[in-house]
Amino acid sequence: MGKELKELTSRSENYSQWYNDLVIKADLAENSSVRGCMVIKPYGYAIWEKIQSELDRKFKETGHVNAYFPLFIPKSYLSREAEHVEGFAKECAVVTHHRLKSDPEGNGLIVDPEAKLEEELIVRPTSETIIWSTYKNWIQSYRDLPILINQWANVVRWEMRTRLFLRTAEFLWQEGHTAHATEAEALEEAKKMLNVYADFVENFMAIPVVKGVKSPNERFAGALETFCIEALMQDGKALQAGTSHFLGQNFAKAFDVTFVDKNNKQDYVWATSWGVSTRLIGALIMAHSDDNGLVLPPTLAPHQVVIVPIYKQPEQLAAITEQAEKIMNLLKKAGISVKYDDDDTKKPGWKFAEYELKGVPVRLAIGARDLENNTVEVARRDTLTKTTVSADNIEIYVSELLAEIQKNIYQKAFDFRTSVTREVNSYEEFKVEIEKGGFLLCHWDGTPETEEKIKEETKATIRCIPLEGDQTPGVCMVTGKPSKQRVIFARAY
Amino acid sequence: MGKELKELTSRSENYSQWYNDLVIKADLAENSSVRGCMVIKPYGYAIWEKIQSELDRKFKETGHVNAYFPLFIPKSYLSREAEHVEGFAKECAVVTHHRLKSDPEGNGLIVDPEAKLEEELIVRPTSETIIWSTYKNWIQSYRDLPILINQWANVVRWEMRTRLFLRTAEFLWQEGHTAHATEAEALEEAKKMLNVYADFVENFMAIPVVKGVKSPNERFAGALETFCIEALMQDGKALQAGTSHFLGQNFAKAFDVTFVDKNNKQDYVWATSWGVSTRLIGALIMAHSDDNGLVLPPTLAPHQVVIVPIYKQPEQLAAITEQAEKIMNLLKKAGISVKYDDDDTKKPGWKFAEYELKGVPVRLAIGARDLENNTVEVARRDTLTKTTVSADNIEIYVSELLAEIQKNIYQKAFDFRTSVTREVNSYEEFKVEIEKGGFLLCHWDGTPETEEKIKEETKATIRCIPLEGDQTPGVCMVTGKPSKQRVIFARAY
Repeated sequence: MGKELKELTSRSENYSQWYNDLVIKADLAENSSVRGCMVIKPYGYAIWEKIQSELDRKFKETGHVNAYFPLFIPKSYLSREAEHVEGFAKECAVVTHHRLKSDPEGNGLIVDPEAKLEEELIVRPTSETIIWSTYKNWIQSYRDLPILINQWANVVRWEMRTRLFLRTAEFLWQEGHTAHATEAEALEEAKKMLNVYADFVENFMAIPVVKGVKSPNERFAGALETFCIEALMQDGKALQAGTSHFLGQNFAKAFDVTFVDKNNKQDYVWATSWGVSTRLIGALIMAHSDDNGLVLPPTLAPHQVVIVPIYKQPEQLAAITEQAEKIMNLLKKAGISVKYDDDDTKKPGWKFAEYELKGVPVRLAIGARDLENNTVEVARRDTLTKTTVSADNIEIYVSELLAEIQKNIYQKAFDFRTSVTREVNSYEEFKVEIEKGGFLLCHWDGTPETEEKIKEETKATIRCIPLEGDQTPGVCMVTGKPSKQRVIFARAY
Repeated sequence: MGKELKELTSRSENYSQWYNDLVIKADLAENSSVRGCMVIKPYGYAIWEKIQSELDRKFKETGHVNAYFPLFIPKSYLSREAEHVEGFAKECAVVTHHRLKSDPEGNGLIVDPEAKLEEELIVRPTSETIIWSTYKNWIQSYRDLPILINQWANVVRWEMRTRLFLRTAEFLWQEGHTAHATEAEALEEAKKMLNVYADFVENFMAIPVVKGVKSPNERFAGALETFCIEALMQDGKALQAGTSHFLGQNFAKAFDVTFVDKNNKQDYVWATSWGVSTRLIGALIMAHSDDNGLVLPPTLAPHQVVIVPIYKQPEQLAAITEQAEKIMNLLKKAGISVKYDDDDTKKPGWKFAEYELKGVPVRLAIGARDLENNTVEVARRDTLTKTTVSADNIEIYVSELLAEIQKNIYQKAFDFRTSVTREVNSYEEFKVEIEKGGFLLCHWDGTPETEEKIKEETKATIRCIPLEGDQTPGVCMVTGKPSKQRVIFARAY
């Protein structure tokens, strides 16, 4: 069945429905028949492959190597680190048996009670425990350190309310797990990876982020410090785009991982972990897209350019195709990915709408008059504007245009964020302002109690304590107690 | 703790122990604390990344795209295809609960009985069922076909006896799942992917393979025809290196996936699936390596060249390093991956043994006399021979040498296979010959009964019915009944 022109709900009408519509209609992902688990469709997966490939390059450039650890974690491992188990035990997939058999009473397949595992296995929600139980055997001396390992993997967290990409029971991610001889080195690593993430999300995904530290309430279960990058979506809600944890010696103590240092003294090993996930695709959609569909930064677009021939008679197509092929070759040589869509069962108008929906950054249209004039019609997805340019040196024009689009998409998101970021100085004002969305910069007394009260009363959380920008002390907007610096409050995904 | 020079068990002494020693000592993988699950260490994973990257390129070149389907399969899905469930239900990881809680009696964490799943979930042993339940929603018309999707994923099969890489409870693989409008197109796809695998394993992994068809006994559970590539290991045992299945309409029928063809007639969709796994790393090791360690074909070696400086006084090191850096730049420009090991805590002899163990194809050593003479000592891993050559144009010499090594490794494996492949014409002779290992080409009457009898009495199975080579009919060595062509018998991993 051919695809019909796909109408999206508009953002102003229902932002949440717009998001769901877009994920489905742009063929990015869909819900599977397994509760909370998604199917990532080829177009969505192609974006993930681009994210993976660039991050993997950055990880290797900073000295990391990839490895692979088991999917399953023995139940007892989870309990080793007290806060960690608290964070993950309540929502995990538990494997209890290793065989099915035919029901002797004829009701199809049943779990074979004789194949019960001695110890239940948890499908990894994150791999600190299985990895640190392994590192114990790898580390004896300072010469075995640092270990700088990353893993690309699937993880499972039994979330009750799920949403495609943003919160799914199973998701894909990378998790870095590093081991160090000193506290300073581990802290430096955690910060370095935060910067790698920030650089990637800003320059590759075109999403501005605030680098910060989580308040104790929002820290990773088992970490001493969680660094994060926080992004702002178009509906004024925040989205945590990546985290990097300084784990101190917590996991080394839980799994008894010690080393002998240069002075022949024994100590526990220092750790970090850091990760980003397919959630980034959710951030990508919500940060840039519009009522016509996806808006993709050229760096992440599976096709950066699409060429659509415009013709009345089939005879015209041959000449247009010849010109299109010339242009494609020029673009490919310039490192630009391009698709030629000469499908004659679809009208140009349908194709235009389809590629807008799919977020292809640049669309070139070539008609009979373009051939006469040696021109090409160029449409930008980000601004939805059109212009006609000479076909000579088209690859230079398109190259520069892609760079301009990348910059423009970032700037637009940056300007939006600036427009909804403001200082708020009283709790009364806060309660009014939080309803409007955006980042609220407020003084907070540093206590979990105050943070909890604000969360309960307004659904806003501290997204982070920013590492950069104004660090002037003040007084807490709720309690009037001293505050070290303004922190960012927002409602969040 | 510094690593000591690592002695391997020799192949002649104990082949199986040699393999286990090598996997561990070359830092490829190790057993985890989870029964049957391995940890793939960075060096082993780097080889897998090279396998992935080349296969992924080939899949895309042949029109396939990647996607991702859920890890979990509802229990009822497995039962939909009768042979499929028979093949997988007896060894699978079953998720029954989604929460742990503190034991009220104080015995740590227990499974929360209130968090029992309505329907158990199986950790995928292969994804035909979950994928065809999804394809049902994607396919209505012939215009939606073909679907050419591949997935890179982890899968779990609860094997009772496991061995690193060769047979593990969890392993990494790719699984292609394609949907077609006609039987002929599906069959062509299954054969095309068999050829992609054969081409990859022969030219990239330097392992000769026989392309063939499985006998019904050895067919994939749910397939109408299983195509395979069979390799021979140095101990004379066979190893199935990849399979490509023609699934007919079995899964389409099981999940009611129909389409309307060009003539407006409704029919079930035709299917294939095909996969290779981390098992290939086991094949790689067993096909080429020797008593000194790994032998890697240059195409798969994480480092193709290592440079070791030879010096007595630290002062000499600076001059050698300068020369080494020049050479490294030349090699890198020629697309050769190279590592310089100037670690001064290790002696050259230790390094030589270490890089032999790790299978680095070419080792360059540079000493004071080499500087004087503008020479480099070149050692080949495959032949363990050394020669001294001019440092001028070293990149051309090394490039050609790497090509020569790739060819030689393949030829050596090919010659070995030829030397242990022979025709056997009586069952008495067969019983003697099978003890010596190798491929035995024998006539077989085509019945499962005869195959089963031979397996029970000799532990040999039909590895495949070859697609190429001698296809002369004859009489079965066991029953004397007619045989269409000789088939390959061997004991297998």
